Amino acid sequence: MEKKKLTLQSLAELVDGELAGDGSVEIDNLNTIEDATPSEICFVVKAAQADGLENCNAGAAIVPREVESGPMPLIRVRDPYFASAIIQNHLLARPFVAEGVHARAHVAENCELGREISIGPMAVLGKGVRLGERVRIDSGSVIGDGVEIGDDCWLKANVTVEHGCRIGSRVTIHPGTVIGSDGYGYATDSRGFHVKRPQLGIVVIEDDVEIGANCCVDRATFGETRIKSGTKIDNLVQVAHNVVVGENSFLVAQVGIAGSTTLGRNVALGGQSAVAGHLKIGDMVMAAAKSGIHSNLESGAKVGGIPAIPMKKFARVAAAIPRLPEIIKELRRLRKDVAALKEENQ
Amino acid sequence: MEKKKLTLQSLAELVDGELAGDGSVEIDNLNTIEDATPSEICFVVKAAQADGLENCNAGAAIVPREVESGPMPLIRVRDPYFASAIIQNHLLARPFVAEGVHARAHVAENCELGREISIGPMAVLGKGVRLGERVRIDSGSVIGDGVEIGDDCWLKANVTVEHGCRIGSRVTIHPGTVIGSDGYGYATDSRGFHVKRPQLGIVVIEDDVEIGANCCVDRATFGETRIKSGTKIDNLVQVAHNVVVGENSFLVAQVGIAGSTTLGRNVALGGQSAVAGHLKIGDMVMAAAKSGIHSNLESGAKVGGIPAIPMKKFARVAAAIPRLPEIIKELRRLRKDVAALKEENQ
Amino acid sequence: MEKKKLTLQSLAELVDGELAGDGSVEIDNLNTIEDATPSEICFVVKAAQADGLENCNAGAAIVPREVESGPMPLIRVRDPYFASAIIQNHLLARPFVAEGVHARAHVAENCELGREISIGPMAVLGKGVRLGERVRIDSGSVIGDGVEIGDDCWLKANVTVEHGCRIGSRVTIHPGTVIGSDGYGYATDSRGFHVKRPQLGIVVIEDDVEIGANCCVDRATFGETRIKSGTKIDNLVQVAHNVVVGENSFLVAQVGIAGSTTLGRNVALGGQSAVAGHLKIGDMVMAAAKSGIHSNLESGAKVGGIPAIPMKKFARVAAAIPRLPEIIKELRRLRKDVAALKEENQ
Repeated sequence: MEKKKLTLQSLAELVDGELAGDGSVEIDNLNTIEDATPSEICFVVKAAQADGLENCNAGAAIVPREVESGPMPLIRVRDPYFASAIIQNHLLARPFVAEGVHARAHVAENCELGREISIGPMAVLGKGVRLGERVRIDSGSVIGDGVEIGDDCWLKANVTVEHGCRIGSRVTIHPGTVIGSDGYGYATDSRGFHVKRPQLGIVVIEDDVEIGANCCVDRATFGETRIKSGTKIDNLVQVAHNVVVGENSFLVAQVGIAGSTTLGRNVALGGQSAVAGHLKIGDMVMAAAKSGIHSNLESGAKVGGIPAIPMKKFARVAAAIPRLPEIIKELRRLRKDVAALKEENQ
Repeated sequence: MEKKKLTLQSLAELVDGELAGDGSVEIDNLNTIEDATPSEICFVVKAAQADGLENCNAGAAIVPREVESGPMPLIRVRDPYFASAIIQNHLLARPFVAEGVHARAHVAENCELGREISIGPMAVLGKGVRLGERVRIDSGSVIGDGVEIGDDCWLKANVTVEHGCRIGSRVTIHPGTVIGSDGYGYATDSRGFHVKRPQLGIVVIEDDVEIGANCCVDRATFGETRIKSGTKIDNLVQVAHNVVVGENSFLVAQVGIAGSTTLGRNVALGGQSAVAGHLKIGDMVMAAAKSGIHSNLESGAKVGGIPAIPMKKFARVAAAIPRLPEIIKELRRLRKDVAALKEENQ
Repeated sequence: MEKKKLTLQSLAELVDGELAGDGSVEIDNLNTIEDATPSEICFVVKAAQADGLENCNAGAAIVPREVESGPMPLIRVRDPYFASAIIQNHLLARPFVAEGVHARAHVAENCELGREISIGPMAVLGKGVRLGERVRIDSGSVIGDGVEIGDDCWLKANVTVEHGCRIGSRVTIHPGTVIGSDGYGYATDSRGFHVKRPQLGIVVIEDDVEIGANCCVDRATFGETRIKSGTKIDNLVQVAHNVVVGENSFLVAQVGIAGSTTLGRNVALGGQSAVAGHLKIGDMVMAAAKSGIHSNLESGAKVGGIPAIPMKKFARVAAAIPRLPEIIKELRRLRKDVAALKEENQ
């Protein structure tokens, strides 16, 4: 990948930053403080870490506003972590390279493909698949009949999207993930045999969603399972049928969400946490890793524990739990003392 | 998919239901109360919800026995949820469409395939694979040497079944699932190096089993790992080597079962729960989501918690845990009071 | 697979064992006490189990040193479990069969492949992939551009290794596993929108590592995610970006390790346990199944619980937790008694 060269001045403008030093320096990459070279820019998240710039070879640095000068030209911003991501993406951005449909891919009849696409070897598109522009589908991925995918999507290797699901624009799906497998629904007879409830709905993935590797998002029983725009999902996450995940939410690795639960926007669920079915979780809810949410939560709730309780309380409870054996001993001592006092008082 | 049309009368007979109203109404689909149209049937699980039928456009409804009449013809049954599943499956049932072996699938030598099968593009069958009738294997699935699969099975996209495993009839396996990978077994020497214990057994999946997406069922060290008939497994479930899962059990998403454990029939393990190795779990055992089972359980046990304890007790314990900080304070107050009393009594 | 025949004498020498009985017996397989035949050897882990040899048809047995004789010739060793693994691997070892690149595999330009390799149908190698000798890549696996793989590796079906990752020698990766997917990193703006932090590092898997099915090992943001030599990973395990897993460690099924955490050597994490990000976990640390590690741990620590505490304490705490409702009652009784005593003393 050949590198772009951009002046520090233009990068400062990109992030509404204030330039301190020579804006004509040319930058072709973002790197860490340790490894950055004179053609690269690095970043410092907190002012206290700005000392690290002394022994750094970077040609420029992104720093918090409080840092006024340094050993190299600076871009001063409110949020260096965020600005560095914007600058890095800008430096790395390349025009889409359309490689067309590989001779060893299989595209079934009645597909409508954008003019600029890349379908890798051994990828399979079912009947009537519709792809937008600049869509890349990597080797071994299988796209079911009638699936619609918007512009600028990237489905990596060995992804499966089952029939009828709809994917918006600028969606990235990592290897091994399965979108649109059947929801888990059965009716059980009096002898304990289970009859499958057909799963007739679809999955809708809105714009700007990213889904990690080896995740599962099940299709709805009726209607839709929906991942709203801007949500980012880590690896090995389970989203059951008829779940709605609100905008810009974070589902960290190995999270599980049971059927028909609705999450609001900007929800953040820590790794291995789980939400029971048929719940309403408000906006901006945060759950600690490994929590188990068993009841509805209002917007802004911060919870932890199994079952999950408010985070502040959980912190105190978690600190208290290891003291249980000691509590039991203390109780025994008190009981003795009280018995003795009663004896004396008789 | 073209629709069947069946009279309400015939559907009532199918589920041993009592007809209330015009049995000649023709029904071609089952749908929700909200979305059903005059050619569709809907269902109401509880009598209390029958009011909803007033504003419903369905041509007929399945209702509990207690509901005697409604604004449309009814099928009255003991268990509307179950009856609706039977009726829905019946309405959706279609003859198997045998598409044969796709030109871009690969079938190795000495396979025995039923006359009516569908093998998708990029699917791979190893040497000596045997498939029954009406088996469908979707794109990208890989079936190892010597695997046997019965009738009416559907292996969806990107499934892997490793060599020698045996799958019964009417089994469905969802995308990304791996059957027959090596069990996790090592012998460790005195310096801490691990030597692999060869995993020579197989996996046997009995009839009418359904396994979700991205699951793992490991082959036995010696002998078999076995999923017995009628069991339904959700997504991202781990079944270790030499495990036996009894008939008609439910393993909800992200469950893990460690090696050599045996589950009885109609066991139901909640999401993210786990069972330690070498245990015997009886019939009809139920475990709450996220429980950790560390000891044998008798048939009928209902448990929750880590480690799992009887469910009723667990409910009381879970309610008590958040009171721990308050308990500690109360203990401190009591200690003071008792000390004061002792002082006074001296 | 035709069987080797080896004398008991030669097997005894292989494991530095002491022979008791006829060393000329020819053995072609290792099997269980129950199933072993006269041409097979079985093993007994503890002296107390040696009685089982009475009704056993094995031609020989591996036993602990304390067992001096038995109904068949014996190999006496310090650790029969370990010796049996060595002997079994020796009996099962076969020369690598190089099948070359299958006509239905796809190998892109500029790859360098060892002379003896087997690439299965529908496998895909990207540009510039380098494979050592005796590498086997099974059907449906996708190896990204520039990936390097050492000697004697086996990547099973439907594995994905993304661009630029490096895999050592004698590494086995089971089906569905994804190596080198993007780490989970975003910068969030003041309105709650997430911007992706590009993930530019790689994954390095050292020699003698085994990774189970449907695992995820994410590439580093910068630099490397590294699995050190001899480590064995079970199924459905999540290893986040920039994690380092030390030598000869065990990560049991469904474990999750958050970003930038470092594990020492011979660490053993039980099933479904998790380690938070940016932690340092020492050598030989052991964590019980389902633990949640939220702080650094010194070498040799044994922990359990959420959050994890020392194992001995955890065992006492776990035993105490179910007594909480009773504790609350006892407190109430004591409070009453103390109140009564105070009353009396007035």
